[in-house]
Amino acid sequence: MFHATNTPVKGRFAGRSLSVAVGLASLALAAGSVQAQEQQSVEERLAALEAKLAEVEPQATGDEGFSFNTYARSGLLLGGDLQSAPGGPYLTPAGSVGGAVGRLGNEPDTYLEAILNYKQVAENGTRSHYRLMIADSSTSSNDWTAGDGALNVRQAYAEFSNLASFSGIFEDASIWAGKRFDRDLDFDIHWLDSDIVFLGGLGAGIYDVKFSESVKSNFSLYGRSFLAFPSDIQDQDITEDTDNLILTADNYFGNVQWTLSGMKAQDNDQRVVGGVQQAAETGVHTMLAYHGDSFFGLSDGSFKVAVLHGQGLGAETKNIGADGDLHEDAVSTRLALYGTTYLSDNWRFAPAIMAETSEDRYIEGDEYQWLTFNARLAQEFTANFEMQYEGSWQTMDLTTQGYQGRTAVDGDYSRFTVAPTFKPQVGGFWNRPEIRLFASYSTWDDELDGYSAGDALGADSDFDSGQWTFGTQMEIWF
Amino acid sequence: MFHATNTPVKGRFAGRSLSVAVGLASLALAAGSVQAQEQQSVEERLAALEAKLAEVEPQATGDEGFSFNTYARSGLLLGGDLQSAPGGPYLTPAGSVGGAVGRLGNEPDTYLEAILNYKQVAENGTRSHYRLMIADSSTSSNDWTAGDGALNVRQAYAEFSNLASFSGIFEDASIWAGKRFDRDLDFDIHWLDSDIVFLGGLGAGIYDVKFSESVKSNFSLYGRSFLAFPSDIQDQDITEDTDNLILTADNYFGNVQWTLSGMKAQDNDQRVVGGVQQAAETGVHTMLAYHGDSFFGLSDGSFKVAVLHGQGLGAETKNIGADGDLHEDAVSTRLALYGTTYLSDNWRFAPAIMAETSEDRYIEGDEYQWLTFNARLAQEFTANFEMQYEGSWQTMDLTTQGYQGRTAVDGDYSRFTVAPTFKPQVGGFWNRPEIRLFASYSTWDDELDGYSAGDALGADSDFDSGQWTFGTQMEIWF
Amino acid sequence: MFHATNTPVKGRFAGRSLSVAVGLASLALAAGSVQAQEQQSVEERLAALEAKLAEVEPQATGDEGFSFNTYARSGLLLGGDLQSAPGGPYLTPAGSVGGAVGRLGNEPDTYLEAILNYKQVAENGTRSHYRLMIADSSTSSNDWTAGDGALNVRQAYAEFSNLASFSGIFEDASIWAGKRFDRDLDFDIHWLDSDIVFLGGLGAGIYDVKFSESVKSNFSLYGRSFLAFPSDIQDQDITEDTDNLILTADNYFGNVQWTLSGMKAQDNDQRVVGGVQQAAETGVHTMLAYHGDSFFGLSDGSFKVAVLHGQGLGAETKNIGADGDLHEDAVSTRLALYGTTYLSDNWRFAPAIMAETSEDRYIEGDEYQWLTFNARLAQEFTANFEMQYEGSWQTMDLTTQGYQGRTAVDGDYSRFTVAPTFKPQVGGFWNRPEIRLFASYSTWDDELDGYSAGDALGADSDFDSGQWTFGTQMEIWF
Repeated sequence: MFHATNTPVKGRFAGRSLSVAVGLASLALAAGSVQAQEQQSVEERLAALEAKLAEVEPQATGDEGFSFNTYARSGLLLGGDLQSAPGGPYLTPAGSVGGAVGRLGNEPDTYLEAILNYKQVAENGTRSHYRLMIADSSTSSNDWTAGDGALNVRQAYAEFSNLASFSGIFEDASIWAGKRFDRDLDFDIHWLDSDIVFLGGLGAGIYDVKFSESVKSNFSLYGRSFLAFPSDIQDQDITEDTDNLILTADNYFGNVQWTLSGMKAQDNDQRVVGGVQQAAETGVHTMLAYHGDSFFGLSDGSFKVAVLHGQGLGAETKNIGADGDLHEDAVSTRLALYGTTYLSDNWRFAPAIMAETSEDRYIEGDEYQWLTFNARLAQEFTANFEMQYEGSWQTMDLTTQGYQGRTAVDGDYSRFTVAPTFKPQVGGFWNRPEIRLFASYSTWDDELDGYSAGDALGADSDFDSGQWTFGTQMEIWF
Repeated sequence: MFHATNTPVKGRFAGRSLSVAVGLASLALAAGSVQAQEQQSVEERLAALEAKLAEVEPQATGDEGFSFNTYARSGLLLGGDLQSAPGGPYLTPAGSVGGAVGRLGNEPDTYLEAILNYKQVAENGTRSHYRLMIADSSTSSNDWTAGDGALNVRQAYAEFSNLASFSGIFEDASIWAGKRFDRDLDFDIHWLDSDIVFLGGLGAGIYDVKFSESVKSNFSLYGRSFLAFPSDIQDQDITEDTDNLILTADNYFGNVQWTLSGMKAQDNDQRVVGGVQQAAETGVHTMLAYHGDSFFGLSDGSFKVAVLHGQGLGAETKNIGADGDLHEDAVSTRLALYGTTYLSDNWRFAPAIMAETSEDRYIEGDEYQWLTFNARLAQEFTANFEMQYEGSWQTMDLTTQGYQGRTAVDGDYSRFTVAPTFKPQVGGFWNRPEIRLFASYSTWDDELDGYSAGDALGADSDFDSGQWTFGTQMEIWF
Repeated sequence: MFHATNTPVKGRFAGRSLSVAVGLASLALAAGSVQAQEQQSVEERLAALEAKLAEVEPQATGDEGFSFNTYARSGLLLGGDLQSAPGGPYLTPAGSVGGAVGRLGNEPDTYLEAILNYKQVAENGTRSHYRLMIADSSTSSNDWTAGDGALNVRQAYAEFSNLASFSGIFEDASIWAGKRFDRDLDFDIHWLDSDIVFLGGLGAGIYDVKFSESVKSNFSLYGRSFLAFPSDIQDQDITEDTDNLILTADNYFGNVQWTLSGMKAQDNDQRVVGGVQQAAETGVHTMLAYHGDSFFGLSDGSFKVAVLHGQGLGAETKNIGADGDLHEDAVSTRLALYGTTYLSDNWRFAPAIMAETSEDRYIEGDEYQWLTFNARLAQEFTANFEMQYEGSWQTMDLTTQGYQGRTAVDGDYSRFTVAPTFKPQVGGFWNRPEIRLFASYSTWDDELDGYSAGDALGADSDFDSGQWTFGTQMEIWF
């Protein structure tokens, strides 16, 4: 353990001493200039100040040096009995295969990402960006969660841009290596807390290879670890590890994005799923998306629509390559779309649809079909206050063939939330932070309780259809 | 797990790109101004510099954007055998119910809080403050503590102040939500490492509702998690969870503070404590405190005095609502006071008293009574050096009725510490950091060793009354 | 647990409020100056700007206030079967006793150190530096590693320098306390990922006691925890803890460094190693090193050479005092040297040697001998691209006497790596970050596979001599 942790101190200290020395020198200059100011002309002093400020400013604003970004939410979600209620956008049976419902007034956790950036500009103009993301997730309300927290490193990568020696189609390219969320294959339907597509892991790649003004591509290799899966039909305790390697070309033609990924997890076909060894060893995934700059051409706003399709290991359509249990014949197709617009001066509207059909997903003959309608509506009242409303309706028909002890179910789920919301500056869909109070009513077909004894609907006999929940939450990103 | 972690990238990147763009634009302006300076008047250049610097300054000083705060201590506490000695302000039997003794030369751990703040000012003037606190605690001296450290998130909240649309009694109010230590119900007797009162958890609230110049109130709802408590008299392995919800009004009348809290933990009466189900489901807590701006009216300095009283779940007088084992008939009353003053130009003096009486606390008929006298004295020698002295005397009479296998004890504990102390700038009670060497002598009634086989006095047969300990420590906050 | 976490809020908030107040006041001044500018002369405005900028600059650049440092690497190391390959500089049998081989193209992990600094300057000129290092290590490629990560605090200390009241031989001295890596006894052969010497733990010390222009010394006491070692020959489950206390004098005579450490771990002789109780309770360690400012006097560049010798607990020559299993008669001697130079305008060369001989190390009669030759060569092509090459040869003869079930082995290991490398600015040995692709060929005597069933060579039957591995990695420090 020790060995792994020795660090190149000489190099580090060399660099650090230099920057400190420069800092001290410039401080001395500044101090000296006070004494010497009589000898200096106003012109010289102005020029010195302008130069110094141009140097200091990017450090102060985070354009160079350190900067801090965050996504965080923390809230209390209570049932009518004044105890914590189960929740989360993935609480329904469809949630087990990615079918999210609305998140407003439906999140029981403290989840946060602390993102520490460090940016440098080389003398030749090449820029580098190091990003470290530490994240935590906990449903405990206590202020000491060493036992039930989950602090971990989700990203640690370096990216170079403006490379001095790159030219031609690579002139605007960036290259990166390390552990990361992909820069572009990571966009979501915010109101469902579901990415439309997510690609992450450990690898390397290149962004923005420009073939023409409107055609550019990103290329990447990501690895993901499939850890400790059962590999012996007789003995569940015998396990193996492997790596899923994912090659992706992510291409842009104006507003159109077309992504193609191929992946291989050597020996994943030895994985035992449902008592047989038919897990996929390879997979293909593709997405066709359109990033609209109006509300579906109807009014000002924005929209995104994407169709995703995958086979084998690619049949987890959202989290590319992240699910090793997928069957070799698995086929999934997903549709995701949302839009944002103002209905009037003070009413905002953001509807969304997500739906998927999936066959032979984990076990031959299984079938998963679900569809979610969601809409968030907001009425802006004052500089700091608005009312938010969110409705969700989800229908699902899941034939599981007994995968993970799950029972086939067919039914609907609905929820509606009202949330009086405070924010520093009301306006727009992405202004955060927000501090909310909320009350939700949710109802669902009782049949859904039978899907799994371990999920939110199945586990708790007090959590029945026709449920009121309420609480408070903050949400922030910057 | 995955689902919970999708983040609103679009929103985030939108915000980030903007700030980068602004940064770049202003950089370009600054660079451009060098070339264009001949066209610009001195007046214009001065005005530009002043405006730019007014923008950069709050970013550099942390008044806007990122800032960093810390509390940390790290030290080596050794016994006469040159091995780590048990320690900590809560090492005596009374410590198990909050009876702290002095901390100087008595802390065996590395405990630290890394506080990452991010402050924003909206165009309408509303300010927001996001605070993340990551903390760790370990008694290992090693530099790799992945196995025995305890890194976790203690705070993650957003607070808004200067709200543009708030007026009347709310004009100066702040609102918040998330996981936090309360802003005001969190003040301590530093020398005992004991808060006088502490309120923390996950919730929401409002500060500084001003009814008049000298009357203001804070209101809050905090939840705390009571996790995995035994709920079956026959089978200790059957457990339940619940939430303790705490409503608090914290009111100020000039220097007087009066706080009232009511709390309820639904179904906590099913908790098995000492073989019976009589745990409290509700509780009440109140505190009357005075924040003095002299040394008890006798000399320059400061003092605080507080009387706290609680019943049922409120009978944990310091950590409001944090103890779920409390009996439904539990009653506790605590007194806490301290003062600070200079006895002469270079002698500082800070005496403190804390005492509590508690009945039917965990088991009907139990009784806990303890009192601690503590005083820290410091003699300032040079700009960087002072001698610190601390004496503590604690008397206790604890009738446990066998709670957690503890035996009734009645006795006294004393300790005295000498600590040569280095600091960047000697002066005042709150100047930190400090680097200390120290030697302590402690003595106690042998009877106290019998309280619990698991505590500092009971566990280690080498740790007997008449104990010398010594070591070194740093302490810092900023 | 709770008690330990109360923090001196009054002190903290007092300090914080002050700095915020100052920030606001100066902001107000700046704003005010715009209105008042007609009354102010150009001279006054220039002076105000210069003063303000001299204040802001150290905050923005991290010379005062917060700053961020990092060492990080993250990479994908794959075998010919497209699965993760074992690796790391310590993968050979000699690695178990510190015998590293080259690291280029040989690292399977994400390892990172996030270093948060806070520097303050007192009015009297005394400087203080608080440093917190959080580190993580994981071989998982996934972006959620709560289960297999290792986030922990490796450093948390305060150091004072420029002490206003220090004079004479202490005039330039710094003092420190807390948990840390020693400032000076922590330098490495970067290409082996091996420190030449490493001293770390929890303690206190003084740096730069200057006896004359060219003679200065550092003195320190470090404690390390020896946790849960078996202390009963009959029953492995009975364990004890102790502390290893290390006193060190680290002395400099021009370019020559001579270090002497003595250590004692009370009761460590009760530790059971190999079935007997003969572990060392004390130890001595010494190092003689030369820090050269040329390439061995032959050309421009640098070199370091060190001879280290230790006995008893000091016989772990690199990590001073970190190994409690050492035998009371253990004797080790290690040689470490490396140099850096440019062979031509665009070829860099850095050879290194590390070798050790060790007897009666863990079990009477055992013997460990190993030697590593390593050389890294780089050919610089463009502003952003260079080819790197690294070769390593290691020979080892290890007679283990069955310690930890290890078998005696005698053999050689070789590896050669080619790594096309991108960096923001090519040039010099310490420029980072780097983004690399790499391919390695390694070969070794089959006998080495028999050393231990748990190590990289012994554990995996697919990982045989004559191995190709390849992958990608980023490495950064700042």
